[in-house]
Amino acid sequence: MAALVRCPSLLYRPLRFFASMSRKFVQDPHKLLLIPGPIEVADEVLYANAHPSMSHMSPDFASAFGDCIRMTRDILYSKDAQPFLIAGSGTFGWDQVSANLVEPDEDVLVLNCGYFAEGFADCLHAYGAKVDQLTAVIGGTVKLSDIEAALKRKKYKLITVTHVDTSTAVLSNIKVVAELVRRVSPDTLIVLDAVCSVASEEIQMDAWGIDVVLTASQKGLGTPPGLSIVVVSQMALKVFENRSTPVRTYYASWKKWLPIMKAYERNAAAYFATPPVNLIYAYRASLTQITRGPVSLQDRFEAHKDTSRRFKKFAESLGFKSVPLTEDVSANGMTALYFPDGIIASDIVPSLLKKDVVVAGGIHSAIKDKYFRVGHMGVTAVNPERGDMDKISDALAETLKEAKASKL
Amino acid sequence: MAALVRCPSLLYRPLRFFASMSRKFVQDPHKLLLIPGPIEVADEVLYANAHPSMSHMSPDFASAFGDCIRMTRDILYSKDAQPFLIAGSGTFGWDQVSANLVEPDEDVLVLNCGYFAEGFADCLHAYGAKVDQLTAVIGGTVKLSDIEAALKRKKYKLITVTHVDTSTAVLSNIKVVAELVRRVSPDTLIVLDAVCSVASEEIQMDAWGIDVVLTASQKGLGTPPGLSIVVVSQMALKVFENRSTPVRTYYASWKKWLPIMKAYERNAAAYFATPPVNLIYAYRASLTQITRGPVSLQDRFEAHKDTSRRFKKFAESLGFKSVPLTEDVSANGMTALYFPDGIIASDIVPSLLKKDVVVAGGIHSAIKDKYFRVGHMGVTAVNPERGDMDKISDALAETLKEAKASKL
Repeated sequence: MAALVRCPSLLYRPLRFFASMSRKFVQDPHKLLLIPGPIEVADEVLYANAHPSMSHMSPDFASAFGDCIRMTRDILYSKDAQPFLIAGSGTFGWDQVSANLVEPDEDVLVLNCGYFAEGFADCLHAYGAKVDQLTAVIGGTVKLSDIEAALKRKKYKLITVTHVDTSTAVLSNIKVVAELVRRVSPDTLIVLDAVCSVASEEIQMDAWGIDVVLTASQKGLGTPPGLSIVVVSQMALKVFENRSTPVRTYYASWKKWLPIMKAYERNAAAYFATPPVNLIYAYRASLTQITRGPVSLQDRFEAHKDTSRRFKKFAESLGFKSVPLTEDVSANGMTALYFPDGIIASDIVPSLLKKDVVVAGGIHSAIKDKYFRVGHMGVTAVNPERGDMDKISDALAETLKEAKASKL
Repeated sequence: MAALVRCPSLLYRPLRFFASMSRKFVQDPHKLLLIPGPIEVADEVLYANAHPSMSHMSPDFASAFGDCIRMTRDILYSKDAQPFLIAGSGTFGWDQVSANLVEPDEDVLVLNCGYFAEGFADCLHAYGAKVDQLTAVIGGTVKLSDIEAALKRKKYKLITVTHVDTSTAVLSNIKVVAELVRRVSPDTLIVLDAVCSVASEEIQMDAWGIDVVLTASQKGLGTPPGLSIVVVSQMALKVFENRSTPVRTYYASWKKWLPIMKAYERNAAAYFATPPVNLIYAYRASLTQITRGPVSLQDRFEAHKDTSRRFKKFAESLGFKSVPLTEDVSANGMTALYFPDGIIASDIVPSLLKKDVVVAGGIHSAIKDKYFRVGHMGVTAVNPERGDMDKISDALAETLKEAKASKL
């Protein structure tokens, strides 16, 4: 207090000073969040989420929205795909695909590598699609030969691939699958559920011939949850425009949203439903870091690979076993680990929490209690100086030691 | 700078200090936002929106979500109605009602007092409902005798009422309409589009017999946009549970969300789709102010009435004319004003903006260029010490004077 009294002029200055300098915003101390989304978010992104209220029709907001559309396209290496940025969860992307691209009784093929493919299949079914599934063994991906046989057996309107299944940490090779589909069934639309992969795994939308990439804001994109992000190829948009039956949705209808997205990309405002204004500012702050920051997009993907390799190796050295069966089907933004023999979830997850590290339990029904999940996307992977991975590695080793000791 | 150098120990202290004291967060200077949503948001609400990332499955977040469900019910004076808090725009509430409560080819009646009833009708139609509309004259509400006649002519599954139509500032007397519907057609579900009225107009959901109240976070509820809030009576939930056809949506399905909402209300986490975590913390901060703050809910409604009466009177003294035809159909959270003779939108809206006051243009197609809209909800109405209404009143008077002078 003495110091304060000695220079009263400083008493109120700091807040004004803070208010004018986003970089000075420091988020509150908190437990380290290493689940596969939501992920740790940079201070400047949270600060943008605290942006003063703005009209969704204002030029300033329109240009922020336009920036988000353009940078979203950049991350997917696409020239002309159409992003749809709409208030909603990642799940809402499933509804957009099911309602806009599939007509009642059309056949769709779902490649199932875990929990999230089941959900997508349920959603497609709810909108009237006839759904066939090819289910991989747990920890593996669907055999290419099985996909080829299925595509030759039946004409599918679209095929869905979960890029990274958040329940198993299995990574599908979308480049190779897309090549196969284009060769065997060129008219089949290729839909990539990339909720747990955009900005942590490379996706070359145009070069690989992907028609839809659907994702959300709270994983590799390093933004709070609440924004559904769906990017649609011009070919898929044509298929949508040539539907023979009306779209049976309102809020998810691309017919309603397309003119809005086009207006915002021209930095002009248009209205269908009020967008999540603050979240768009936050998303722009994160996209700016990702696409214009010191780390290139390619180096970002490398950083995720490197972080993932080190952590998986370390965990295996402790006796944990990766759920994905081989390295080539292992996600780089998250890790799913079976507990060592004699160790159970309650030995690990709660005591990591006591060490201020938050991880996720298992959600794949068949192995639910046998494994847990760790997310390492965004700043956690790209900014090692934060020490996030050192913190969880040390905590995990100590936790396991304590668990073993308690069982002696 | 000298002062800073004299007490270096203070250099970094303020930020830590700030970070630990939400009340100390000061949002950036900005133009005064007086449109009918999004509205000006309190510093503590924006600060909560910058909450560090949290797991949507954490006990801390579950109890925040539970608080939001309970306080949402309190604002509507309901004992047991079921709130659904889902990432989305207010418009998404229309989809929830259309998809969950109406089955294909069922008859619904829409009371039309402006632009937003048109939208709700489009949405109901998209989901297969047979929609009849009773359209009021611009600035008026639908005659009770017309509603009674329509209800006697046909059996309607539900009737929709726009409480405050944001395009005209017309307020419907939902208490009286609900009484009429209950008397003439007791099985018809009463759906209130209260996007522009919750927390700025009184709504006694149980006492008045309203089945569904749908709203959004960014208006009277004083939170950034991105949260769809739909509250459903137990009677309406039973109607939903007794549907004879499956729900043709996934993300909007109450079947998926009901167990999640019930779990969160028990302060336990459950997963269907990732909720907008930060926005839930922000919503809780605002709900706490509204339901547990120094101003009672009843006084809050009075403050909105008082603010509205004064501003409308002042604007009329300047020569502007209210779009609503009489005071008893005038909203208390917003004002829609016809320009005086010889004055056009470009005389008023841009020069208010130059005076750092943001208002909204007209959106009702029939009178689009003849009027503009002002929002005065939440802190603007309840915290007069902010001086928001003085600022717009002075700016409006000056702007009009300048406009008239320029025409001489």
